[in-house]
Amino acid sequence: MYYIGIDVGGTNLKAGLVDEEGKILEVERIPLRYESPEQFAKVVADLAVTVTEKGGISAEEVAWVGMGMPGSVDGGNVRYLTNIPMENVPLEELFRKHFDRPLYLGNDADCAAVGEYFSGAGKGTKDFAVVTLGTGVGCGLILGGHLQGGAASSEAGHLVIVHGGEQCNCGRKGCWERYASATALIGFTKKAMEAHPESALHAVAEKNGVVDGRTAFEAALQGDETGKAVCREYVEYLACGLNSLINILRPEMVALGGGVAAAPEELLLQPVRELVAKESFSSHGGRVTEVVRAELGNDAGIIGAALLGRVV
Amino acid sequence: MYYIGIDVGGTNLKAGLVDEEGKILEVERIPLRYESPEQFAKVVADLAVTVTEKGGISAEEVAWVGMGMPGSVDGGNVRYLTNIPMENVPLEELFRKHFDRPLYLGNDADCAAVGEYFSGAGKGTKDFAVVTLGTGVGCGLILGGHLQGGAASSEAGHLVIVHGGEQCNCGRKGCWERYASATALIGFTKKAMEAHPESALHAVAEKNGVVDGRTAFEAALQGDETGKAVCREYVEYLACGLNSLINILRPEMVALGGGVAAAPEELLLQPVRELVAKESFSSHGGRVTEVVRAELGNDAGIIGAALLGRVV
Repeated sequence: MYYIGIDVGGTNLKAGLVDEEGKILEVERIPLRYESPEQFAKVVADLAVTVTEKGGISAEEVAWVGMGMPGSVDGGNVRYLTNIPMENVPLEELFRKHFDRPLYLGNDADCAAVGEYFSGAGKGTKDFAVVTLGTGVGCGLILGGHLQGGAASSEAGHLVIVHGGEQCNCGRKGCWERYASATALIGFTKKAMEAHPESALHAVAEKNGVVDGRTAFEAALQGDETGKAVCREYVEYLACGLNSLINILRPEMVALGGGVAAAPEELLLQPVRELVAKESFSSHGGRVTEVVRAELGNDAGIIGAALLGRVV
Repeated sequence: MYYIGIDVGGTNLKAGLVDEEGKILEVERIPLRYESPEQFAKVVADLAVTVTEKGGISAEEVAWVGMGMPGSVDGGNVRYLTNIPMENVPLEELFRKHFDRPLYLGNDADCAAVGEYFSGAGKGTKDFAVVTLGTGVGCGLILGGHLQGGAASSEAGHLVIVHGGEQCNCGRKGCWERYASATALIGFTKKAMEAHPESALHAVAEKNGVVDGRTAFEAALQGDETGKAVCREYVEYLACGLNSLINILRPEMVALGGGVAAAPEELLLQPVRELVAKESFSSHGGRVTEVVRAELGNDAGIIGAALLGRVV
């Protein structure tokens, strides 16, 4: 059988035809245009038809279609999305009028976790988490081989690590996301640049034309003390929430994804691993939670969406 | 079939014969004496034989024996216990030499969760947590109908809620347990008594001969402002960690157990529920995580141990 995975991004819809091994065979990408639930369901169904035809297979050979989207979903129903004004829509029902295969919905962090679990870093584990470090901190959990998704999809970015700390959009104060997202890292970097006009951070930012999640790591690699301090500060907060997540769930592995995870291993993964070994219960009873980099990059969304049906 | 549950406490071993409905039919209690793994396995097996005979059934009618103990276990093996010097012991193997039925081991918070899940507050849920408020903060998780136990047993008491806060025995600073356990509540109460000699806390403590987890609630019920402030402080920290746990796992229900959970509903459960409704993602998408009191009290340990085999 084959599976179709659709990744609903900020501006595009990407669909992929995926085989039993979780390999992408065909990809199709179209701009995201939203008019109504009915029109959207039709667009998605047309996209599924397109990749099916591109792959030279029949609709009957497609076991199901999976779709990853930013927001909250429950089975084949959309509860709300963060980038499309769709609320409480029975999307599977609308979709099947045009392409009569099951439609599984997942949020994007969940799809990343599913993709990594079957085809990436998490292969062979049973208790596995993906934490994505981007605009926010996303989290997808596979526990006992099942996705803790749908209506129970994790919002681990909103665990409080600093009681009474920075105001978060979610209403709480001191959420992990305010200290461990790429957005937070950029904030730390800008603050350090203001306080340290002598720092190499300025030259790095000027060369790249932007202050982003890489600025501090690049300056630190050059030996810049301020850059190193920013990286340490960030790592310390990242590990704080990670250790809480690990203590709650004791997973075999956590894979870090998103832009920041691409940082040099000695400045990110290595010090995080040291803090996990030192501070978490992962080191009790001979069990150590591995912290690794996610492997699939942008493909995780398509692959994970395609394989959603295996874990729900 | 019948099940035997054994609760390993600080000073006693309690064994219960439990039926299919999770009802305790017979109980037997003996003092805890530990000499060696072999002796302990024999004592436990003898206890199983005793309740079997008391119940008038044969060993073949006992599906399995479950045992709840404070520490870390993995399948039928003990990794370490906090009150008995037993480490890395294949307890099931030793046990079956004397009573040839499967032996399931669980830690005590996990057993409380299993008991409440089948016979108490958690009946009918699939994603369910028990949080016990005692000397520490314990946590047992049922996710998708399975116990997140054994080698993956939750240590949610050690999620950090105050970055750089109070030193915890586990090595971290600012763990939830340092702010939400009965121990923490007693600490808040004593501190408030020092600062407020006029408070009714003093009279309550004198009457009861002790400052304990009930002192502040009792004074608050009398209208004492200091007592009320201690309760609010405690509730606020309790809800902080609870909301993090809820955001990570989005369970249907959290049941609070342990001594503190017996506090007056309007001073504990009600304000906690308000903070959960306000601060957690439980209120998104029409899904609200219920916060209730655990129902089984001391029986949870026996019933949960007895039914361990259903969820592992």
